[in-house]
Amino acid sequence: MKNNITQNLANKIVDTTYNKKVPEQVLLEAKRSFLNWLGVAIGASRHESVNMMLELADELGGHNQASILGRNCKVNLQFAAMINGMASHIFDFDDTLINTVLHPSAPVWPAILAIAEFKNLSTEEMLFSFVVGCEVEQSIALCLYPSHYDKGWHITGTAGTFGAAAAVGKLIGLDESQMNYALGLAASQPTGLREMFGTMNKPYHPGKAAANGLISALLAQKGFTSSPNSLEAKRGFCQVVSEQPKWQYLTGPWGEHWAISDNSYKPFACGIVTHPGIEAGTRLKNKHQVLPSQISGITLEVHPLVRELTGKLEPKDNLEAKFSIYHCTTVGIIFGKAGEDEFTNEIVNDPKVLALRQKINAIVNTDLKEDQAILTAYLIDGTTITEVIEHVVGSKDRPMTNKELENKFRQVTAEILSTNTQNKLIDTVWQMDKPLSVREILALCTPRA
Amino acid sequence: MKNNITQNLANKIVDTTYNKKVPEQVLLEAKRSFLNWLGVAIGASRHESVNMMLELADELGGHNQASILGRNCKVNLQFAAMINGMASHIFDFDDTLINTVLHPSAPVWPAILAIAEFKNLSTEEMLFSFVVGCEVEQSIALCLYPSHYDKGWHITGTAGTFGAAAAVGKLIGLDESQMNYALGLAASQPTGLREMFGTMNKPYHPGKAAANGLISALLAQKGFTSSPNSLEAKRGFCQVVSEQPKWQYLTGPWGEHWAISDNSYKPFACGIVTHPGIEAGTRLKNKHQVLPSQISGITLEVHPLVRELTGKLEPKDNLEAKFSIYHCTTVGIIFGKAGEDEFTNEIVNDPKVLALRQKINAIVNTDLKEDQAILTAYLIDGTTITEVIEHVVGSKDRPMTNKELENKFRQVTAEILSTNTQNKLIDTVWQMDKPLSVREILALCTPRA
Repeated sequence: MKNNITQNLANKIVDTTYNKKVPEQVLLEAKRSFLNWLGVAIGASRHESVNMMLELADELGGHNQASILGRNCKVNLQFAAMINGMASHIFDFDDTLINTVLHPSAPVWPAILAIAEFKNLSTEEMLFSFVVGCEVEQSIALCLYPSHYDKGWHITGTAGTFGAAAAVGKLIGLDESQMNYALGLAASQPTGLREMFGTMNKPYHPGKAAANGLISALLAQKGFTSSPNSLEAKRGFCQVVSEQPKWQYLTGPWGEHWAISDNSYKPFACGIVTHPGIEAGTRLKNKHQVLPSQISGITLEVHPLVRELTGKLEPKDNLEAKFSIYHCTTVGIIFGKAGEDEFTNEIVNDPKVLALRQKINAIVNTDLKEDQAILTAYLIDGTTITEVIEHVVGSKDRPMTNKELENKFRQVTAEILSTNTQNKLIDTVWQMDKPLSVREILALCTPRA
Repeated sequence: MKNNITQNLANKIVDTTYNKKVPEQVLLEAKRSFLNWLGVAIGASRHESVNMMLELADELGGHNQASILGRNCKVNLQFAAMINGMASHIFDFDDTLINTVLHPSAPVWPAILAIAEFKNLSTEEMLFSFVVGCEVEQSIALCLYPSHYDKGWHITGTAGTFGAAAAVGKLIGLDESQMNYALGLAASQPTGLREMFGTMNKPYHPGKAAANGLISALLAQKGFTSSPNSLEAKRGFCQVVSEQPKWQYLTGPWGEHWAISDNSYKPFACGIVTHPGIEAGTRLKNKHQVLPSQISGITLEVHPLVRELTGKLEPKDNLEAKFSIYHCTTVGIIFGKAGEDEFTNEIVNDPKVLALRQKINAIVNTDLKEDQAILTAYLIDGTTITEVIEHVVGSKDRPMTNKELENKFRQVTAEILSTNTQNKLIDTVWQMDKPLSVREILALCTPRA
């Protein structure tokens, strides 16, 4: 059972070809993943950590091979993968495979995009390589989870490196032996500790995973060798970073169910446990047209985890606000949304936000599931309004629609792209399963004048 | 006790200054380390894996900032650290801190050399930053050892990254907070699994450690943030990669005993357990002038580990030969030495070598220590010669002399540097505690025409 696991995985990656029909529904999910990923990467492209990394890229130099999303510049393949991967995770607003907490796009799409631009590949090839890369990273994540994550590894950085290596390896045509070596190089350099959450070092993880995965594939193509048993060996990757690897996730056949099918997207720019409260809040404004000045008090019934993980009563800044169910619900009520703009330091310290935040009472209701909440608003005129969230938007039972993903894309890129460009870009993404050139997308990703 | 460990370490790194007297003996050991490191890096500079990495550097591009040892070319800082670090570990002929199996020079010197060339620093500053970098990497290695290594981590790649970050951080003048962040970035990206031993991926580890450490320091200088508790936190580096971190190695004061003082150097280009047998073999030729044709049989009494780790009777190639006490002893007898040249595939399969190899009988003598061996040669004319190795050369009780290190340097660089250049380089290294420019060394490190 434990023999040749790495080689078997490498063989599956190489043997899977586009012609062996990946279902249309799976390709659609890959397109949805790309649209979501592209939006959050462009949206965060002006962050100071991106500036620092671009400065470093400039100091070290390199050929102008691949574009930085949302900026008018190119850097070499390695830095393009690094920077776009990092940018896409800065808002913590990217996609999630819930059962492993893996963010599948952030380490894989930037590596694909960089090599695709450099080699002028088609969007069709890109989509397919993403499906494969995602399958690899999630297989490895499932093999390691939960002990790996519990111990303290940021699984997006560690498993993601394999996804990037596999996707790029596919696009540059590695053979079975080279693909094995690429996985071996990925195995040697896991990036990411959970202790770094809340600092620039967190989005650094998927960025580095993308760059390391890309470099692993490029070196393997040159004949750079590794152990052929890097995953399964006694002192190989899986047993070094996980207590009890579940080998069956690496050895099963492919094609019955593609990992990307389970991808989920966040409607709000903060931790998923706060989302039912936020959605309930947005309904006060969007459905009932309630103004903050009309409210005398709010009671929010939530799943126990909500207070445990996001119980910060008086957040002081952007980051703390994301861990405050009080702030999250407040901005839902005031603005009818909770994107990155609703978590700026200015908003967090705005007296109007502060005033409403203090009127919110979050109480535990052990009958509620994680995707549920009940909000009761007591208005000054004596009226009471109750909103029950059965399944929050973005949850498994109520995934974001294409339209909702488009709106999210428009919101996160609003300051960088014109409406006209946004529309063209959205249209192009929905056609990615056609043989378009990657350049048709990239031409639309530079900022408006 | 466990509070602020990372910050305390960062403070010690920043607070230690050259004026607070590092003893001359310690600086001498740093020079000896550099000479040994420089030799093995230059010696391996033509290896095919170096060619692959240079090809990649060329494809990605970059400013010509720092030299590749033994070649006539410059690449950017990142690739210079990567490639020189990798080259220096290819022969497995670099230095070792025995009590943690850490190879201290391979991840640290290349990072120092790259930044020193770029900023035209003095050899004096380089030496001092190496003493500090070595102190950091060995402190971390001692904190993690042995469970970290037993589990399967290549400690030179993991702990080495911190050493490189600290040394470069020193040279570019990071403050306490920046130094802490540099350690945090190093913590996020451990490189190296023991499963990769015997493949190109092994020397890749210190190379990547050097590059990652360098980049960590450069990013920290720009204000790139990490958790301030990256080492000691519950989900921080030490508890993620080790069972029972020994915090006292990180919290103790500096300056009573410098880690580099314990450095050891290999006289022969293979695993340390084979060395007593090799030295005994060399004495047959060098002391007794015995020719292979005179020998009817050899009995070698060894420590039990020798047969366990290096019991390969019929090695087929370079790598297997290094794990054969039979081959190792044979080349000692025939050539009077055992450098990289005595392990080529040609030598391994040479009929004369094969013939003598088959006459060697290695038997366990449980009275012997690891640095001891007894060789008995039975000659065709009936004579018997016995050589007892009490403490093998290169062991703690009989460290290699400066002269022996110089001879090793001459041997490993013989194909690349002229005798005149070798002599000049050796002279310059012994003067590194003077304020010479790094360029005086680098000018001598390019190959002869």
